[in-house]
Amino acid sequence: RAKGRKPWKLMLQIWKIVIITAQLVLFGLSNEMMATFKEDNLMTFEHLFLKGFKDHWQGNYALYTKADLYDHIYHYTNLQNLTLENLAYGKIDGKYTPLSVCQLLYKNSTVDPERDSFYIDPHIDEGTEIRPAEGLVFLCRTFRTLLVSVNINFTLKTINLQTVRHHELPDCYGFHIKIIFDNCAHSGKIKVGVKNDVQIHECKDYNVKASGKIDYLVLIVLFSCIQEFKIFFQTHFNKLVTWSERMEFVNGWCIFINISDTLTITGSVIKIGIQTKFLTNYDVCSILLGTATMLVWIGVIRYLGYFKKYNILILTLRAAFPNVIRFCCCAAMIYLGYCFCGWIVLGPYHDKFRTFDKVTECLFSLINGDDMFATFLNMRDKSYMVWLFSRIYLYTFTSLFIYMVLSLFIALITDTYETIKHHQKDSEPATLLHAFIEEVPESA
Amino acid sequence: RAKGRKPWKLMLQIWKIVIITAQLVLFGLSNEMMATFKEDNLMTFEHLFLKGFKDHWQGNYALYTKADLYDHIYHYTNLQNLTLENLAYGKIDGKYTPLSVCQLLYKNSTVDPERDSFYIDPHIDEGTEIRPAEGLVFLCRTFRTLLVSVNINFTLKTINLQTVRHHELPDCYGFHIKIIFDNCAHSGKIKVGVKNDVQIHECKDYNVKASGKIDYLVLIVLFSCIQEFKIFFQTHFNKLVTWSERMEFVNGWCIFINISDTLTITGSVIKIGIQTKFLTNYDVCSILLGTATMLVWIGVIRYLGYFKKYNILILTLRAAFPNVIRFCCCAAMIYLGYCFCGWIVLGPYHDKFRTFDKVTECLFSLINGDDMFATFLNMRDKSYMVWLFSRIYLYTFTSLFIYMVLSLFIALITDTYETIKHHQKDSEPATLLHAFIEEVPESA
Amino acid sequence: RAKGRKPWKLMLQIWKIVIITAQLVLFGLSNEMMATFKEDNLMTFEHLFLKGFKDHWQGNYALYTKADLYDHIYHYTNLQNLTLENLAYGKIDGKYTPLSVCQLLYKNSTVDPERDSFYIDPHIDEGTEIRPAEGLVFLCRTFRTLLVSVNINFTLKTINLQTVRHHELPDCYGFHIKIIFDNCAHSGKIKVGVKNDVQIHECKDYNVKASGKIDYLVLIVLFSCIQEFKIFFQTHFNKLVTWSERMEFVNGWCIFINISDTLTITGSVIKIGIQTKFLTNYDVCSILLGTATMLVWIGVIRYLGYFKKYNILILTLRAAFPNVIRFCCCAAMIYLGYCFCGWIVLGPYHDKFRTFDKVTECLFSLINGDDMFATFLNMRDKSYMVWLFSRIYLYTFTSLFIYMVLSLFIALITDTYETIKHHQKDSEPATLLHAFIEEVPESA
Amino acid sequence: RAKGRKPWKLMLQIWKIVIITAQLVLFGLSNEMMATFKEDNLMTFEHLFLKGFKDHWQGNYALYTKADLYDHIYHYTNLQNLTLENLAYGKIDGKYTPLSVCQLLYKNSTVDPERDSFYIDPHIDEGTEIRPAEGLVFLCRTFRTLLVSVNINFTLKTINLQTVRHHELPDCYGFHIKIIFDNCAHSGKIKVGVKNDVQIHECKDYNVKASGKIDYLVLIVLFSCIQEFKIFFQTHFNKLVTWSERMEFVNGWCIFINISDTLTITGSVIKIGIQTKFLTNYDVCSILLGTATMLVWIGVIRYLGYFKKYNILILTLRAAFPNVIRFCCCAAMIYLGYCFCGWIVLGPYHDKFRTFDKVTECLFSLINGDDMFATFLNMRDKSYMVWLFSRIYLYTFTSLFIYMVLSLFIALITDTYETIKHHQKDSEPATLLHAFIEEVPESA
Repeated sequence: RAKGRKPWKLMLQIWKIVIITAQLVLFGLSNEMMATFKEDNLMTFEHLFLKGFKDHWQGNYALYTKADLYDHIYHYTNLQNLTLENLAYGKIDGKYTPLSVCQLLYKNSTVDPERDSFYIDPHIDEGTEIRPAEGLVFLCRTFRTLLVSVNINFTLKTINLQTVRHHELPDCYGFHIKIIFDNCAHSGKIKVGVKNDVQIHECKDYNVKASGKIDYLVLIVLFSCIQEFKIFFQTHFNKLVTWSERMEFVNGWCIFINISDTLTITGSVIKIGIQTKFLTNYDVCSILLGTATMLVWIGVIRYLGYFKKYNILILTLRAAFPNVIRFCCCAAMIYLGYCFCGWIVLGPYHDKFRTFDKVTECLFSLINGDDMFATFLNMRDKSYMVWLFSRIYLYTFTSLFIYMVLSLFIALITDTYETIKHHQKDSEPATLLHAFIEEVPESA
Repeated sequence: RAKGRKPWKLMLQIWKIVIITAQLVLFGLSNEMMATFKEDNLMTFEHLFLKGFKDHWQGNYALYTKADLYDHIYHYTNLQNLTLENLAYGKIDGKYTPLSVCQLLYKNSTVDPERDSFYIDPHIDEGTEIRPAEGLVFLCRTFRTLLVSVNINFTLKTINLQTVRHHELPDCYGFHIKIIFDNCAHSGKIKVGVKNDVQIHECKDYNVKASGKIDYLVLIVLFSCIQEFKIFFQTHFNKLVTWSERMEFVNGWCIFINISDTLTITGSVIKIGIQTKFLTNYDVCSILLGTATMLVWIGVIRYLGYFKKYNILILTLRAAFPNVIRFCCCAAMIYLGYCFCGWIVLGPYHDKFRTFDKVTECLFSLINGDDMFATFLNMRDKSYMVWLFSRIYLYTFTSLFIYMVLSLFIALITDTYETIKHHQKDSEPATLLHAFIEEVPESA
Repeated sequence: RAKGRKPWKLMLQIWKIVIITAQLVLFGLSNEMMATFKEDNLMTFEHLFLKGFKDHWQGNYALYTKADLYDHIYHYTNLQNLTLENLAYGKIDGKYTPLSVCQLLYKNSTVDPERDSFYIDPHIDEGTEIRPAEGLVFLCRTFRTLLVSVNINFTLKTINLQTVRHHELPDCYGFHIKIIFDNCAHSGKIKVGVKNDVQIHECKDYNVKASGKIDYLVLIVLFSCIQEFKIFFQTHFNKLVTWSERMEFVNGWCIFINISDTLTITGSVIKIGIQTKFLTNYDVCSILLGTATMLVWIGVIRYLGYFKKYNILILTLRAAFPNVIRFCCCAAMIYLGYCFCGWIVLGPYHDKFRTFDKVTECLFSLINGDDMFATFLNMRDKSYMVWLFSRIYLYTFTSLFIYMVLSLFIALITDTYETIKHHQKDSEPATLLHAFIEEVPESA
Repeated sequence: RAKGRKPWKLMLQIWKIVIITAQLVLFGLSNEMMATFKEDNLMTFEHLFLKGFKDHWQGNYALYTKADLYDHIYHYTNLQNLTLENLAYGKIDGKYTPLSVCQLLYKNSTVDPERDSFYIDPHIDEGTEIRPAEGLVFLCRTFRTLLVSVNINFTLKTINLQTVRHHELPDCYGFHIKIIFDNCAHSGKIKVGVKNDVQIHECKDYNVKASGKIDYLVLIVLFSCIQEFKIFFQTHFNKLVTWSERMEFVNGWCIFINISDTLTITGSVIKIGIQTKFLTNYDVCSILLGTATMLVWIGVIRYLGYFKKYNILILTLRAAFPNVIRFCCCAAMIYLGYCFCGWIVLGPYHDKFRTFDKVTECLFSLINGDDMFATFLNMRDKSYMVWLFSRIYLYTFTSLFIYMVLSLFIALITDTYETIKHHQKDSEPATLLHAFIEEVPESA
């Protein structure tokens, strides 16, 4: 009896995979166009606003002398004649939005390093909004060393014409640009960064006829998921009377499928919101849809598991899971110990150990074969004690984790694999998986 | 009886390897000279036509301001006085071929980002062909922001004199150069690229006596392969009467050898075509010859397999094959799930996840020990949610694949190896391989 | 009986972990702020004092011509007008501290490479202290080719204002800057480096009210550690009479915990010293605290080991330890042989093999999956013999260590794991660990 | 009886290790000083002679326009005033050695790419020697496009003063500098390189008293090695009468030790030659000494093998050796097939596949965890067919070798390890090693 319904369920699953993936791909393609447009614009702004900017610097743009700084401040007036893009400064009520300059500084303070004395009023003065023309001259006049940071804010508007060629309506983009001269460390190094926050909205007045594409795909996805959901609840939960029975039932693949469906539905709803320019949180939508798609693909393994020889991977993973978790608990203790120790000792001397999450990533990467020599090398010319410590630290860490822990992990998996194989040979194991399948009626 | 003919067949195989490899090496060397000449020329063109080009930029050359762009357009007139190469502009019927400038633009369109309004005619105007002298001035006059792209095409001719020193006749090269100013994203960043398409032909008028080298090697290769082919069909296929018998016969090494021979013959024929300047598809030829050579080399293992202890590799691989395929099916599901999810979520924020095939490559590389920290690092300063997602994504992916799946793979192979070894100890296994060998008559 | 006290001890351990880690984190954060301030200042100095310095050079700044050198020497006078930082030259007794210029040179020496002759007095003249104004002119006048090195020393004072925003008192920093023009190789390449040695002290005269934060955490840590220490010695050592008994007792975790406590106490005491500006050896303190924290975290495994299935990691590591050590002895012999050989032969031709400790790091990294192709590549264009040697060297090394030794290591661990597992199945092993636990009274 | 003599032989071995390593270290240190001096000088020359040279270019310096080339040629006259080094042009018989300019060009040739015609006389004219002053003007006048290459040769002399500080006598260095403008590809890209060939000799006339250090260490090494050699031959070979007996005796460690001793003696003799400025082949000497030291260190394992548990590494390696070799034969066939195929197809499109030995290195590195994504990436923007081929090629290669072959290798070693272990448990195996030891008398 069970044999008879398998193909039908598999086909349903394949159908689900196809439409969910198709939806994902379409969303991905339009998302990509938007993302590259934003990125290219940010790059353009960096090249226009940061003098002598080079692409390969990756945000390490910094100024060191007064002359360089003044040079920069006087730079943002005739933007429209400079660039080839269709840019315009923002306008509110027919007037240009001001180029607001936020000048954070300690106001009534004096610092005299020569005599080791200072008087500081920790309250930070937030500066005034000024229009470009008169503002920048004023800025430079009042420029003082007790400056904390200068933020220059302005709005640029542009239209993403690219979409015309894909027969979609161009959107209007508002870039809220913030140029930050960050001197809060007072170390003589002023970091300069350009940040742009984008606002996408429909253009008010346009003249291109493009077919209002209704996204039938989303509707299909939504419909089939909700249907599946409904049937699932109707057939199973209503049959089972007590809560304890219900809780028992909810296991493994069952939870898996429900999560996947919930994510798909939520994602699709948000996607409709984005396409109607009602919502703009692309990130949430892509995370929901992405995770849903991943779960749907992984869900196929459930059906592959019907063929006895195919489920070795999933069986081994499941059987090894408790041991792996226990093993990882122990290993994590040692790992965290190393992380804390590395962060505190090597943090000040090595870029990869600067913050705690960087340390965890760096050590995790080292285990998996990252460039170790570079990590060794960058710790060189330090005090001898730290140098020695870093050597001992790295040698013991890599030896312990790569040679011992990883080898033990392989032993663990190999062992589980062999247990599973012997079990399979001896008898058809009545795993939970198969028991579950046989209980579930055809409609699920 | 079987023992007696082995050396003869092995020698034939070695002879085949030697001449096929020799042919490959000769082709490779002449191919390399041609390839470096093309590449060096492309580099020269980039340095001549792209102002301030640096080698290590690797094609990320872009312009951001109008001034830079105009500066570039006025640049291509007195090429011959500039370079040290033997270059000449192409001539047709005694007149210089025009410097065709393809100016793609939206013709009757206006865009006003300030008022969020635009009128666009999506038809793209393809621009006119113009001669260098008068053309470029005209170009700059009509240069507008609604430009989609400017392509400058022209033909340069040169002679590859290098071959004179290797006692070969120099060829004449026609480089069809295309300089592309790509503004189709309208993001203010105009990507500039130089592409050269090369046409190689014999020079018309020359005065160096070089011996017309007939490539005997190709003929030998061709002859021996065809001979082998002929004998194979005569002896085997004619003996076997029914189709079912024939299909049964065609297995493993047999198919292997026939594919190898077919590729060799096709490749050699194309090679003759190339040497007589009749064909120019170097790529097809090199792929055919390369694959053929690879197969011939791998084919040696068949003969090594006669010595019982040598065939452990090939036996294990063959025995493990079905399990490996099944295992890979399951792993591929999870892998594809991760790929889709990574592409959609991280695509806009990370270079390595931009396109789907890049994602598959990146994840595949991560499993095999690529630089993980760099992958982690480049995802930094994003929105907190994406940042968190990327961490979970990467940690789970690497843990799952490097620790679990890879360990299980090792377990799979180890297990197969042990099975094979026990089998070998117990009895001489009458594998298909040996059965096949005994059936094949001496001439094959 | 043993079951009853476990939770109490575990809670004590968790409490210890929490407070020690909290202390570490607090120290780490303040340490980090200090470290970035120092580093940013060093970077600022490099940009101010080394003309045309680029960040990505990483200390490879060098001069090659006389003109460049003179250009540099005349550069350090009007620093205060140049930078945005609150810098001041140091003053002693109301006078500026001199810009001491240490000019090391061979005094009465002549060198004539043209005639292969030289007269050298190996005594090095140490040069005089000079004030900036008159000094530098004098320096350039007397500049000669037999110069060994010029060190320019001066003191800059600044105040780390950043801490004001974290409601801490700003410290005064004295940077002892040393600009070194190193010509001791006499090879025409003069390496230039900036080193800054920092002295941190409380400012004399200030006017910001910040609460004098007493570090209660340190006191808690100290108290609990000393308490633990005291109890440990009272309960155990006094009970045991003979020394042999004592020595027997002192094993494994026992030593472990004592070391951890000792480190914590020493580190905490130094930390108090640092916070009261009495001591400045941040490095020692961070190494002590870091190691202590690491040990405390690893110590948790001891308690996890009570749950039978959790201690597989630690049991395997302990059981495999003697074999691993023996194995490593043998491997180390081969490893050291390769190191010496690589250093002597490839040292002059390859950056990674320049010093002996670099060789050990490079080979160790190669085993663990470092970028091998780059290592191969950088050895190219050398004499053919060295090139060939480097190939054989690298191929044999990687084959031997990655394929053989590492695989054997895995076999070793797998084997131990299986032994442990069989042991565990057969009977509850009365390990030393458990014996120890049962002997230790509740208070320990 | 055997137990009694072990310590003595081990001590002798340790003594040998110590003195041979000491000798190596001393040689290494003096070698290093010489090597850095040479390298720094080469760097200085590159910076002086190649305009705008940057360190990180690593020899990819090339010129593309006539203007740049002329600019370069007029550059080498007033060297002595430029640099800070003690440089002098070479002099022979009181006259400056000429700045020989080798101008290789096709003399009576005309090339007309416009008409696809050329007349070439393949004989290359070697150009004349000219003195700097008049020569360079002449050179530029006659500069033509049919130039193959221009080599500028001259000799610079300097003295390595650095050694004075180590109480050694400074040597005189003669740098034979060759600046090569390589246009042999006639592709418009002229590669420029600086090569320096160094000649080291004692200075003629000097005035520093340095103790004539006789290298006692070398003599000790030599003496002990020769002694060992002599005893070995006297005791063993003379006892054994027939050649068959002799050949039987010569196995394993015996050959090992003899090779090591021979290398040490040869290396030490060459080292004496170098120290007396009689020989200059540092490379040969360092290879000999390095290999000897490596062998001596590895030889220690022989003595560690006496302790039963220590010899697991060496026993496994020896037992696995025949299988490993057989296995590698098969794997090498597949590997070579891939190498040839990759070289011919991807060679023209990818830097890492340009030459055959690069391909072998690249693939070998890929197996051992090299950066795969970069390898994938650099093959991008090619014709679609090649792109597809490269993907299939890389995926199959890495899957086959990393997952299959490497896993099988681990299985092979694990298997051998277990066999050895079982053997050891069952009975003390009377290995060849022990048999040998018992036969050798005490003096060896």
